[in-house]
Amino acid sequence: METIKIIIAGPRGRMGSEAVKLVENTEHFELIAAVDYKHDGMMLSDLPGFQSIIHSVPVFSDIEKCLQYVKADVLIDLTTPEVGMYHAKTALEYNVRPVVGTTGFTKEDLEELERICNEKELGCIIAPNFAIGAILMMKFSQMAAKYFNDVEIIELHHDQKLDAPSGTAVKTAEMISAVRERKKQGHPNEKETIDGARGALYDGMHIHSVRLPGLIAHQQVLFGADGQTLTIRHDSYHRGSFMSGIKIAVETVVKNNRFVYGLENILD
Amino acid sequence: METIKIIIAGPRGRMGSEAVKLVENTEHFELIAAVDYKHDGMMLSDLPGFQSIIHSVPVFSDIEKCLQYVKADVLIDLTTPEVGMYHAKTALEYNVRPVVGTTGFTKEDLEELERICNEKELGCIIAPNFAIGAILMMKFSQMAAKYFNDVEIIELHHDQKLDAPSGTAVKTAEMISAVRERKKQGHPNEKETIDGARGALYDGMHIHSVRLPGLIAHQQVLFGADGQTLTIRHDSYHRGSFMSGIKIAVETVVKNNRFVYGLENILD
Amino acid sequence: METIKIIIAGPRGRMGSEAVKLVENTEHFELIAAVDYKHDGMMLSDLPGFQSIIHSVPVFSDIEKCLQYVKADVLIDLTTPEVGMYHAKTALEYNVRPVVGTTGFTKEDLEELERICNEKELGCIIAPNFAIGAILMMKFSQMAAKYFNDVEIIELHHDQKLDAPSGTAVKTAEMISAVRERKKQGHPNEKETIDGARGALYDGMHIHSVRLPGLIAHQQVLFGADGQTLTIRHDSYHRGSFMSGIKIAVETVVKNNRFVYGLENILD
Amino acid sequence: METIKIIIAGPRGRMGSEAVKLVENTEHFELIAAVDYKHDGMMLSDLPGFQSIIHSVPVFSDIEKCLQYVKADVLIDLTTPEVGMYHAKTALEYNVRPVVGTTGFTKEDLEELERICNEKELGCIIAPNFAIGAILMMKFSQMAAKYFNDVEIIELHHDQKLDAPSGTAVKTAEMISAVRERKKQGHPNEKETIDGARGALYDGMHIHSVRLPGLIAHQQVLFGADGQTLTIRHDSYHRGSFMSGIKIAVETVVKNNRFVYGLENILD
Repeated sequence: METIKIIIAGPRGRMGSEAVKLVENTEHFELIAAVDYKHDGMMLSDLPGFQSIIHSVPVFSDIEKCLQYVKADVLIDLTTPEVGMYHAKTALEYNVRPVVGTTGFTKEDLEELERICNEKELGCIIAPNFAIGAILMMKFSQMAAKYFNDVEIIELHHDQKLDAPSGTAVKTAEMISAVRERKKQGHPNEKETIDGARGALYDGMHIHSVRLPGLIAHQQVLFGADGQTLTIRHDSYHRGSFMSGIKIAVETVVKNNRFVYGLENILD
Repeated sequence: METIKIIIAGPRGRMGSEAVKLVENTEHFELIAAVDYKHDGMMLSDLPGFQSIIHSVPVFSDIEKCLQYVKADVLIDLTTPEVGMYHAKTALEYNVRPVVGTTGFTKEDLEELERICNEKELGCIIAPNFAIGAILMMKFSQMAAKYFNDVEIIELHHDQKLDAPSGTAVKTAEMISAVRERKKQGHPNEKETIDGARGALYDGMHIHSVRLPGLIAHQQVLFGADGQTLTIRHDSYHRGSFMSGIKIAVETVVKNNRFVYGLENILD
Repeated sequence: METIKIIIAGPRGRMGSEAVKLVENTEHFELIAAVDYKHDGMMLSDLPGFQSIIHSVPVFSDIEKCLQYVKADVLIDLTTPEVGMYHAKTALEYNVRPVVGTTGFTKEDLEELERICNEKELGCIIAPNFAIGAILMMKFSQMAAKYFNDVEIIELHHDQKLDAPSGTAVKTAEMISAVRERKKQGHPNEKETIDGARGALYDGMHIHSVRLPGLIAHQQVLFGADGQTLTIRHDSYHRGSFMSGIKIAVETVVKNNRFVYGLENILD
Repeated sequence: METIKIIIAGPRGRMGSEAVKLVENTEHFELIAAVDYKHDGMMLSDLPGFQSIIHSVPVFSDIEKCLQYVKADVLIDLTTPEVGMYHAKTALEYNVRPVVGTTGFTKEDLEELERICNEKELGCIIAPNFAIGAILMMKFSQMAAKYFNDVEIIELHHDQKLDAPSGTAVKTAEMISAVRERKKQGHPNEKETIDGARGALYDGMHIHSVRLPGLIAHQQVLFGADGQTLTIRHDSYHRGSFMSGIKIAVETVVKNNRFVYGLENILD
């Protein structure tokens, strides 16, 4: 496989520092520069936590200066939505393909990036979630919902999480809703002797949120029919789980000449 | 082991017919009579479903006549609470030890039976639930709650069930409450973006009820603490699951000279 | 939906009797005849277990006589491989589309049926397994194996099962093997301190067979990667689980003009 | 609750550094000194990773000097077996109660410590495993085995683990064996079509070892009987899971005047 030359923006962040490890540990990936709003002009190995990087990786605070200075194939951006948008557009101008892992892009942002990709015939991947297991769980749930229209979602997280249900649970329910034959599940006369027992109701389906110390991020989707159940479960133990998704995105974006939103659209 | 001579009351019911099979298939058990409000004077093998019983098992509609006629060690009663109470008292008068599998006894009933047992120094076991697995699940949950005060209960049943949460889930929560250090679980600022997501609240704990076709009767109790979770799960697939509990109750009642309410009190 | 007129061959078998219920309970399905090697000339409602069928369903021992007598759309065959092959060929001659649920067809049989389907432009579905949940589990496992090349299979069955691993587990491993990047899993220096701990080895993957009383038929496929696991599980509780697959096959075969082997090929 | 004054030996190790956090974060615990073979005469807050400790915690390389200098209630020792033995004996001489979390003590060591405890009427707890969840899993499994004599163990670990089955799985099997009615499980004629499918055989029970990247340390014990299964599962996500066991041990050792080996013996 030909070596892919990579710039990482946001190398000191939680995701960014994992991405640095990924690139360093992947044989056909090469880290050639980093973009960081601090530390312009330094070497990445001078920054705490990166002493093990023995080859020279210059740090730039200005993306444009970076793109002029090094000749990259891909920009991995793990910053913030505003910065990510600016970085992605600038990278495309310099014929560098962006892989952006931030949520919060507006519809207009996405349309603008798609237009630029089409004009320049360049690939670009924007993904709010890079955990391949989670994406497959949602995709398989949607597929199963064509054959099983009884489904419940149980998501389980640590007890520091504020919102219930989780964003992934709601996204899963939306994807199922799009294909599922409409149905109000449960017995028509069922009653809760304690409020909330049957969980949150989303378009006829029920979602249950468990919160316990010790748990990390888990979800299971249960389908039932006469005499059988089908369960699809994803367990995420630490953010290293995002890295295989970023790897696939990088390998795909160099071959693709189109704009992609959502990792599910590059998995088959 | 010495043979235990047994009368079954309610042999044609769902539980009763399983109990007949149990007694017939247990080497040291012997079925010597049946009590049925119909079919007085017939043989059990004359009734539909019992053709395979080749030895003679007389059927009586009157418990007293039955107890005078045969010399039994144990009465297994799987009828209704009213009938069960009358049967149990009558059996004790004839020095026959009752094993009764019905719910709905009043406090006064239980006290009266206890008094008779003490007077006559006879064993008697009344149990609302004979599924040993379910009882161990509740017992272990109570034990674990001393060390883990964060716990959530998920119960899963077929979608023809009307009430949520299930009786077993509420019973489990009660047993945990009795020993658990008081705590309102979850993040103090957690909020439900869809009502009911966090389930039913019982004394600071959360209970979730899943209903799907295909499911039978299942419950899992999850405990969480820093870096670990402990899960206790019972799956009940058919009512044969009650029979091992009845077997243990029969074997225990012949050796015991006291009144017992609840199978958990004879398991150690 | 237009009513589909159906003949069932093998109505008294375990699968066949469930199929009779399915057809009777599906609004747009109509049972118009049965083929049974016994009971020629009787009505199905005369046979034990079928008293609830109030409309007339004639029973034939000769498939050809049956096909001449009634005008059917679909033949559901749940007999034996030899009989099933003869029934399927004869049905196609009479322009009736077969849905056959038996294993054991030879490669030559399948090729002959495919040739006849093509000539007559008629649909025909042969499926060794009609449990949609099991088929989706295998299909999803194959899809996931493209992204996760570390996988183990745990299958769990009642303790009366003779063979280990189960046929479904081996079929799943085969399907995964076809797409998975070759890998010998586990640590290269791992060692079993008790033989067999790491299970059966199939092309670098491990398969574990659990056998316990109480269990019915269950399988879970676990995929692992950095920081995450993905689990796909199917639980089969009774043979009613096959019926939704037969329903989909019947609905599909009337619209399809081609030969299909394996239910997975009509699910998308 | 009265404050418990604590010395920690081995504060820079993986377990030790967690123990420092535990003591610092527990209201009625007070860290008054540390024993470390290096850094004699320094303050713990001078060592990397301990800057957040604002009160003075002197570091000693010699346990005896430490015990003369500070007046402690409990020594938490997380060093090595040899050092741990010497530390425990010395602590008891100075009337300080040891909580030792190392494996590898010999039978003679344990007997000697027990003798000293009896003489001095002091508590001492030696525990090879402080994960309460794991210990409860084993304890509950042993209790359940009295009623269910069909059981299989599935343990699941990351794929860098060398031995299969895990030590915990073998320990669980031993504990079950001690109470279980002898039985060779599975169908008498069952056969493995691929070697190892039925797992490792331990006294008639089967143990299955799953190894996958992403997994950490998990074990489930499955019991089966007619119509039901009971599952007890422990998931360990990081070594913080040991801390609640150490906390209970410290709280127990100050009230206990006897020697205890194994945390299971102080849980009820």
